[in-house]
Amino acid sequence: MTTRALNLIVWNENIHETRDEKVIRIYPDGIHRVIADALQQLLSDSEVRTATLADPEHGLTEAALADTDVLLWWGHEAHDAVDDAVVQRVKTHVLGGMGLIVLHSGHWSKIFTSLLGTTATLRWRSSGDRELVWTATPSHPIADGVPNPIVIAEQEMYGEPFDIPTPDETIFMSSFSGGEVFRSGVTFTRGRGRIFYFSPGDQEYPVYHHPDIQRVIANGVEWAAPRSRTRDIPRLEGPVSPI
Amino acid sequence: MTTRALNLIVWNENIHETRDEKVIRIYPDGIHRVIADALQQLLSDSEVRTATLADPEHGLTEAALADTDVLLWWGHEAHDAVDDAVVQRVKTHVLGGMGLIVLHSGHWSKIFTSLLGTTATLRWRSSGDRELVWTATPSHPIADGVPNPIVIAEQEMYGEPFDIPTPDETIFMSSFSGGEVFRSGVTFTRGRGRIFYFSPGDQEYPVYHHPDIQRVIANGVEWAAPRSRTRDIPRLEGPVSPI
Amino acid sequence: MTTRALNLIVWNENIHETRDEKVIRIYPDGIHRVIADALQQLLSDSEVRTATLADPEHGLTEAALADTDVLLWWGHEAHDAVDDAVVQRVKTHVLGGMGLIVLHSGHWSKIFTSLLGTTATLRWRSSGDRELVWTATPSHPIADGVPNPIVIAEQEMYGEPFDIPTPDETIFMSSFSGGEVFRSGVTFTRGRGRIFYFSPGDQEYPVYHHPDIQRVIANGVEWAAPRSRTRDIPRLEGPVSPI
Amino acid sequence: MTTRALNLIVWNENIHETRDEKVIRIYPDGIHRVIADALQQLLSDSEVRTATLADPEHGLTEAALADTDVLLWWGHEAHDAVDDAVVQRVKTHVLGGMGLIVLHSGHWSKIFTSLLGTTATLRWRSSGDRELVWTATPSHPIADGVPNPIVIAEQEMYGEPFDIPTPDETIFMSSFSGGEVFRSGVTFTRGRGRIFYFSPGDQEYPVYHHPDIQRVIANGVEWAAPRSRTRDIPRLEGPVSPI
Repeated sequence: MTTRALNLIVWNENIHETRDEKVIRIYPDGIHRVIADALQQLLSDSEVRTATLADPEHGLTEAALADTDVLLWWGHEAHDAVDDAVVQRVKTHVLGGMGLIVLHSGHWSKIFTSLLGTTATLRWRSSGDRELVWTATPSHPIADGVPNPIVIAEQEMYGEPFDIPTPDETIFMSSFSGGEVFRSGVTFTRGRGRIFYFSPGDQEYPVYHHPDIQRVIANGVEWAAPRSRTRDIPRLEGPVSPI
Repeated sequence: MTTRALNLIVWNENIHETRDEKVIRIYPDGIHRVIADALQQLLSDSEVRTATLADPEHGLTEAALADTDVLLWWGHEAHDAVDDAVVQRVKTHVLGGMGLIVLHSGHWSKIFTSLLGTTATLRWRSSGDRELVWTATPSHPIADGVPNPIVIAEQEMYGEPFDIPTPDETIFMSSFSGGEVFRSGVTFTRGRGRIFYFSPGDQEYPVYHHPDIQRVIANGVEWAAPRSRTRDIPRLEGPVSPI
Repeated sequence: MTTRALNLIVWNENIHETRDEKVIRIYPDGIHRVIADALQQLLSDSEVRTATLADPEHGLTEAALADTDVLLWWGHEAHDAVDDAVVQRVKTHVLGGMGLIVLHSGHWSKIFTSLLGTTATLRWRSSGDRELVWTATPSHPIADGVPNPIVIAEQEMYGEPFDIPTPDETIFMSSFSGGEVFRSGVTFTRGRGRIFYFSPGDQEYPVYHHPDIQRVIANGVEWAAPRSRTRDIPRLEGPVSPI
Repeated sequence: MTTRALNLIVWNENIHETRDEKVIRIYPDGIHRVIADALQQLLSDSEVRTATLADPEHGLTEAALADTDVLLWWGHEAHDAVDDAVVQRVKTHVLGGMGLIVLHSGHWSKIFTSLLGTTATLRWRSSGDRELVWTATPSHPIADGVPNPIVIAEQEMYGEPFDIPTPDETIFMSSFSGGEVFRSGVTFTRGRGRIFYFSPGDQEYPVYHHPDIQRVIANGVEWAAPRSRTRDIPRLEGPVSPI
C-alpha cells in the first residue's frame, strides 16, 4: 500500500440533499461531506476535496483532475446532467492512471458504464432490507480490518444479475433479507487506472456513517491510488523499428 | 453445444446410502442412481454408467475413463479412502480433455483440490436452510432453462469465503435463509479439461430429485463434454527447431 | 458448437479497395467479399451477407441486425465516419446476444472501444514482417484445425502493450520477425454477447486469402453465435418483491 | 508496495553448480548467491537467506518458513529429489500468505505444479536464442523501472503452449529469435498467497547477472510480500450459526 500523501476528490451530484427532507436529515451537508470527513480521519495525510454537479465544470477541471490521485463518484438521479466532455476528461485521467471509486447508484453513471462497456443493470428494491456484506477474498487489502460479514441494518437491495464484465477480483458478496445476492465489491483495471465498485450506500439510509463501510472505502482509495501522479495515457506507437 | 452421443460416469462414494436410515429413505438406490436416471432422461442419446468406491479400482479403470466424455463426482466422508493412483489417473484424463462435474461435498475430494491447488474450505451448517440459487451469468449455457432463482426448500448451507482460485466464470451465486452467500456454480479449465463445480445437493435433503437441479447438471455435462474422445495430454516438446 | 444455420453480416468500410491500386489488386471486390466467400464455403448452411460504410445506415438497420447471429467488422481509416447512432444500435444488439468478430485495424473502431472501455492502442509497423500465430489455448474451439503456428509470410506488425481489459481467454499470441509479440486472438463477453478479436489481416497483404486465417474466422463465428436469435438485453428490474 | 523489512529465502537445488564446468564459470557460488546478492542490494532493508537441496530438510524447516515473507524457487534436474513433506509444508505456508517466486525451470517443480494443478509443460530449445521480454501490462508494479523490451542476448527458449491455468495477470510476454512466444511473467493467487512465475534465467546463460532481470525479481518480491507475517490458513468453519 502506498504511504505517500494522497490527493482525493469526493464527487457527489448533491441533488437529493437539497430537496428531500428524509435525506437532508441523514446527510445535512451532503453525502460527499460525510465520506470526505471519514477519509480525512482514516487517511490523515491526505488532502480531501469535494466537488458537485453544480460546480463549474462539475468541479472536475483539467487542473483539478491532474492534481488528483483517486476520484470517488456518487450519483443517482442526475446521471444525464453530467456533461459528456467532463466524462471524457475523467475517463482519460482514469486510463492514464487516476484511481476511481464508484459508489452505489453510481453503477449507472456515464463514467462507469463507458469504462465497462456494459449496461450495469441490476435488480433493486428499497424497503429496508438488512444487507450482509461477506468477504469472499480475505487476502485482499480492501477487506482489511472489517468483520465478516459487515452488517448493515437497513439498506436498499441490489441484486444479481449485475450486468458487468467479469471483474478482476470479487472481494465482497452481499445477501439481503429478501433473499437476493449481489457482487457488492468488485475491481477492474482499465488502461493504467484501477477501479473499485462498492455498492453499499444510499441516500435514504445512513450507510456512509457506518464505520466498517468507511473503512472499506478508505481501503479502496489506498488500493486504487497510482504509484505516481504522472499520467501515462496509452497511445499508439508507430511506425517503430525492429529490435 | 455438442450433439453427439456422450458417455458418462456418475461416481459416488455410496457410503451414507448403505448406513444412514434418513439417507436411504431419500436415495434408496444411491445418489448416483438418481443423477444417472435424470441424465439418461434429459440427455437421451447418452450412455450413462455409474461407479462407486466399492468397485474394483473404484470403477475407474483406464479402460473405463478412456471411454468417458464426462465424469461426475460425489463424495463426502470417504475422500481419504479414494486411492491416490486412481486420483492421478482421473487427473490425467481431465488434463487430457475429459469433462469433470464436481458436486456439493466433492469440494474436498482429492481430485478437485489437486486440480485447483487450494484448500477449497468453506463455512457450513446443516439445519435446513432455504437456498436460493441465483443466475449471475444469464448468457451461459449452463443456466439455460432454469428459473432465477432456483428455490431449494431445505438444504445444507455452504458459505463464503470459499477458498478456490478465481473461477473462469461464476454462473450461480446462492443465498441461504441464515444470511450467507456462496459461489454455487463456477467453472475452471485445467489442461484441456473443463470443470464445473455445483454446490446444491446433499445426502440429507432430496435436492437431486429437484428438476431444476437436474437440468443444471445436464447442462453442465453438455458444456464440459470435449469435442472428441481422443485425449490430448499436454506434454513437453523439445528440443524443437526454430521456425 | 451450434449446428443451426447462421445469419452473418461481414461489414467493411471498403475505402482502400476503391482508391488504392495495391489494395485493389489484392481485394478487387473488397475485403468483405473474400471473407464472405470463405465463410459461405466453410459454414455452408449459413446465409452470409455483406454491408459497407456507403450503404444507407451503413447496411446495419434495425431489421438487418435483428436477423443476424454474428457481425464481422473491418475498418481502418474511416472509423470516425461511422454514425454514432448505428454504433449504439450495434452495441445494443451485442449486449443482447449478437456475436461480434472484430478484425485487425477494427481494434480502433467505435464499436470495439465502446464495448471495452479502453483505448485499444498498440505498437505497429508495416514493413512486411513475417507473423507467426501461436496457439496458446489448444483446447479452445476457435483453434480447431489450424497448425501451430500459423505462418503468415508478410504482414503488418501489431505489438504489445495492447491496451485492452484482461481478456476472458487468450487463444493466440503472435511473434513478428522484428521481434515483437501480440495477443492476436482474444475473447470477451459483454452483456449476453460474445466478442472475438483477431488481429491477422490487413489491406496491404493477402492475409484474408490464407486458408488457416479463414478457418480461424469461421471457428470464431461458430463460437460467437448465440444459442437463439432472440435478443435479451439486460434491463433494470425493480422494485421486485422479496422471494 | 510494502515498506517494512522483508525476510526472504532464495532456494536453489544447486546441482549444476557443483558438477558442470560451464555453469560453475557463470555461477561459481550458485545461482542462489547471485540472486540473493542482487536482492540484498535492491531491497536493502531485507534479510536475505539462502537454502539448498542438500541442507537438512532442504533448509525449509517449519521455523524457517514461519519467519519468511517470500520464498524464491529455482530447480531443474532434481525436482523429484525434493521431499514431499517439505513440498506440502511450503504449500501450506503459501496458502496461508507467504509469497512465492518461481523462476525459469521451476515451472516443473512439485510446489508449482501442485499449486496450479496443471502439467506446466511447454516447448523448449537451448541454442542461444535472443529473448525479448515485452511488458504487456505497463501499469503493474512488477514492471516498474525496466525497459520495454528487456533484451537478453542469449537464453534458452521457452514457448507456448504453456499448460497453466489462466493467470490473474500476464505482465510479460517474450519472443525468441527462433520465432516462439511465451507468457514469461504471470501471477496467480492461491489461498492467501501471491505467486509470480518469471521464466528468464537458466544455468547455462548469465541471465541472473542482468540488472533488468534482477529488478523484475525484486519487484516481484515486493509485490508478493504479505501485509503481515502471520499465516492465515483457510480452514473449514462450521457448523456456524445464522447471522
